[in-house]
Amino acid sequence: MTRPSPAIPSGTPTRPGERADQSTVRHANLGTVLRHVAELGPCSRAAVAGGTGLTRGTVSSLVGELIELGLVRESAEPAGPRGIGRPGIAIELGGTVAAIGLEVNVDYLAVCLEDVRGEVRFERRRERDNRGTAPAPVLDRLAELAREALAAAADGGMRVVGLGAAVPGLVRASTGTLLRAPNLGWSDVAIADELDARLGLTSTIQVDNEANLAAVAEHWQGVAQDLASFVLLYGEIGVGGGIFVTDELFRGTHGFGGEIGHLTVDRDGPPCACGSRGCLETLVGLEALARAAGLEAGRTTSAQAIAEEIVRRAHSEDAATLAALAEAGATLGSAAASTVNLLDLEGVVLAGAYAVLAPWLGPSIADGLEEHLLAADWSTCVVRASTLGESAAARGAAAVSLRTVLAAPWVAAGREGSSRVTV
Amino acid sequence: MTRPSPAIPSGTPTRPGERADQSTVRHANLGTVLRHVAELGPCSRAAVAGGTGLTRGTVSSLVGELIELGLVRESAEPAGPRGIGRPGIAIELGGTVAAIGLEVNVDYLAVCLEDVRGEVRFERRRERDNRGTAPAPVLDRLAELAREALAAAADGGMRVVGLGAAVPGLVRASTGTLLRAPNLGWSDVAIADELDARLGLTSTIQVDNEANLAAVAEHWQGVAQDLASFVLLYGEIGVGGGIFVTDELFRGTHGFGGEIGHLTVDRDGPPCACGSRGCLETLVGLEALARAAGLEAGRTTSAQAIAEEIVRRAHSEDAATLAALAEAGATLGSAAASTVNLLDLEGVVLAGAYAVLAPWLGPSIADGLEEHLLAADWSTCVVRASTLGESAAARGAAAVSLRTVLAAPWVAAGREGSSRVTV
Repeated sequence: MTRPSPAIPSGTPTRPGERADQSTVRHANLGTVLRHVAELGPCSRAAVAGGTGLTRGTVSSLVGELIELGLVRESAEPAGPRGIGRPGIAIELGGTVAAIGLEVNVDYLAVCLEDVRGEVRFERRRERDNRGTAPAPVLDRLAELAREALAAAADGGMRVVGLGAAVPGLVRASTGTLLRAPNLGWSDVAIADELDARLGLTSTIQVDNEANLAAVAEHWQGVAQDLASFVLLYGEIGVGGGIFVTDELFRGTHGFGGEIGHLTVDRDGPPCACGSRGCLETLVGLEALARAAGLEAGRTTSAQAIAEEIVRRAHSEDAATLAALAEAGATLGSAAASTVNLLDLEGVVLAGAYAVLAPWLGPSIADGLEEHLLAADWSTCVVRASTLGESAAARGAAAVSLRTVLAAPWVAAGREGSSRVTV
Repeated sequence: MTRPSPAIPSGTPTRPGERADQSTVRHANLGTVLRHVAELGPCSRAAVAGGTGLTRGTVSSLVGELIELGLVRESAEPAGPRGIGRPGIAIELGGTVAAIGLEVNVDYLAVCLEDVRGEVRFERRRERDNRGTAPAPVLDRLAELAREALAAAADGGMRVVGLGAAVPGLVRASTGTLLRAPNLGWSDVAIADELDARLGLTSTIQVDNEANLAAVAEHWQGVAQDLASFVLLYGEIGVGGGIFVTDELFRGTHGFGGEIGHLTVDRDGPPCACGSRGCLETLVGLEALARAAGLEAGRTTSAQAIAEEIVRRAHSEDAATLAALAEAGATLGSAAASTVNLLDLEGVVLAGAYAVLAPWLGPSIADGLEEHLLAADWSTCVVRASTLGESAAARGAAAVSLRTVLAAPWVAAGREGSSRVTV
């Protein structure tokens, strides 16, 4: 974690008509205190004052506001070690502010309700092949899942401060439009507007690529917390990629970066849904892997079901399955090495169905990096499997809103540019 | 070009014992004025005052200091249009501050002396196969070239403020060490220290990868001035890559990024000097291209000579040559598309020997981008040939020092952390 930025001397509480600079100072201090609490875990108000340079009185006032916002709560744990005076009441990140993350994928829909502590309070997943289905009925079902999460939030006394959606394709983030999802056969779908029309929310819905959002989740709560730079390989029917550089999601000029699934692996290879040939996902997407392993076509339709069947066969030492996994691992290893040769990253994270297959794919990918990385002798690139499981992308979609609130807690207060979702 | 940053109110001239903050303010203003002059071209002192918010008196004093440093000069052109009052004397970037750029490559050595206006005042190139030669005698010859440039600078009344060196491999920039240059067969060569021992300079010698530095030169003075993001493909015996993102050179975690020559194009392909197989450069490096075009082995040894022979044969419609160029263009096109699918860049720049071959390679690469880019319908990625010719990397090596001086002109004054090279 990065160190909190130095505190700005505190102003007085914000009142109508108050000068803008005082309100700005208080906002900055509110953020400083919240980040401090997030980093320290359960701690005393005095510890926050000591660490931020703010007075105890100012910290108490700011903590009071953060408690009111549902971002901080008083903890069950004492603030200090026993026996050294009377311990104060510790404070920690609170649990009543949450965000909703949705995911549309080729063969499932998912939702999660995640609180500001990064804990999942509700989640649902619906397996269903969405290919060849028009966007409208799929988005109807997605909105239904969102309503279930909103109801769960209301039942749990949670305040929902944002909603995000993960989609398997190119996104224009500024408008929340899915420009192109080759595996769904969708193009130009105004996801944010369509969801808004169905849910009638007061906040902006943030839409992004599934693998980008899975990378956000891994960096915030998952296996990539200590990696400043990595590429996440998101294995589903297609293959997505999310890239972090210097602790930030790397988007590229128009936000279209990270499309590792469309790296050309074999110019004479099989046709890809994108219109090109021999893209990485035509060789190592989950359906391609199923064919290579000799699974009956059409017997299983979801990437997750394919992955589970492959794991079962691999455990029983099925030769075709083990050969298919070895070949896929080698192909992914050389694609990962190409990516790291270009970008000089610290790690590779296997997510989606690849997380399930990591015991087989991981070592081949590590071998590929060792073999193909020009800088292998001077840098290490670790390979890890996601621990967030199937919900990584949906959790990333929620995390985007939660991280915004953690960075700028006054947003949760609805004072400026409200992102509050009304249930 | 970016707009200059807002000016900080000017302090008084720096004197010994003066408070540090006044000196800091004057430094910042010196930079502001210099950047303004660089952007505006020939202009009046009054125009600089108007554009920066500094007083005319302050601007006059700062311009006086910049003239003394050789960074600004009075121009032959008048400062304003004729007929509107009496025009003042215009000022423009001056021509007596320069830097030296060196390049070691597999089959040649090069040097250039470039002034702060971006004009080349002296250059030399020595063709010679450096493979199988130990570093010491090659660096002896490189130092000899550097001495010629230093002598040319002295003859021309130029002040040399820095020296850089471009090398074809992985570099640890902090120590100026070439870690590995597969095509030279060199590893762990302390380039900066070795040149320093030979030249006895008082400044740090900045060492970087050839393609990185060629990209710096193209962005500063060449065909990429209007591109915030691009990949430069540097075709020599090997293939280098330099990546710009948001107007900055992208280096990656350890500075090892951009190694497009080691993208795995064919896992079962020919062995590469790096120890791997089927790297891009084994298929489209200049020797591979010569073999594919049926040029007699050993008849020509330098990449530039190979490129010229290929151009001659292509002009006479030699079928094997045209087929080899078409195949190389398609391979480069799919590698460029893979890079742009990952990084979402605005352009591809062909440099080194590829610039000479651009009339044949360029259209194939553009086709490859059109075919393989997932975002082709929503973004354009231009393909351009370098106009800096064979000296791009050496010019980039000089540009690094010159850009440092333009950003922080007080460095040229030798007041702080002198980078002044004594001739």
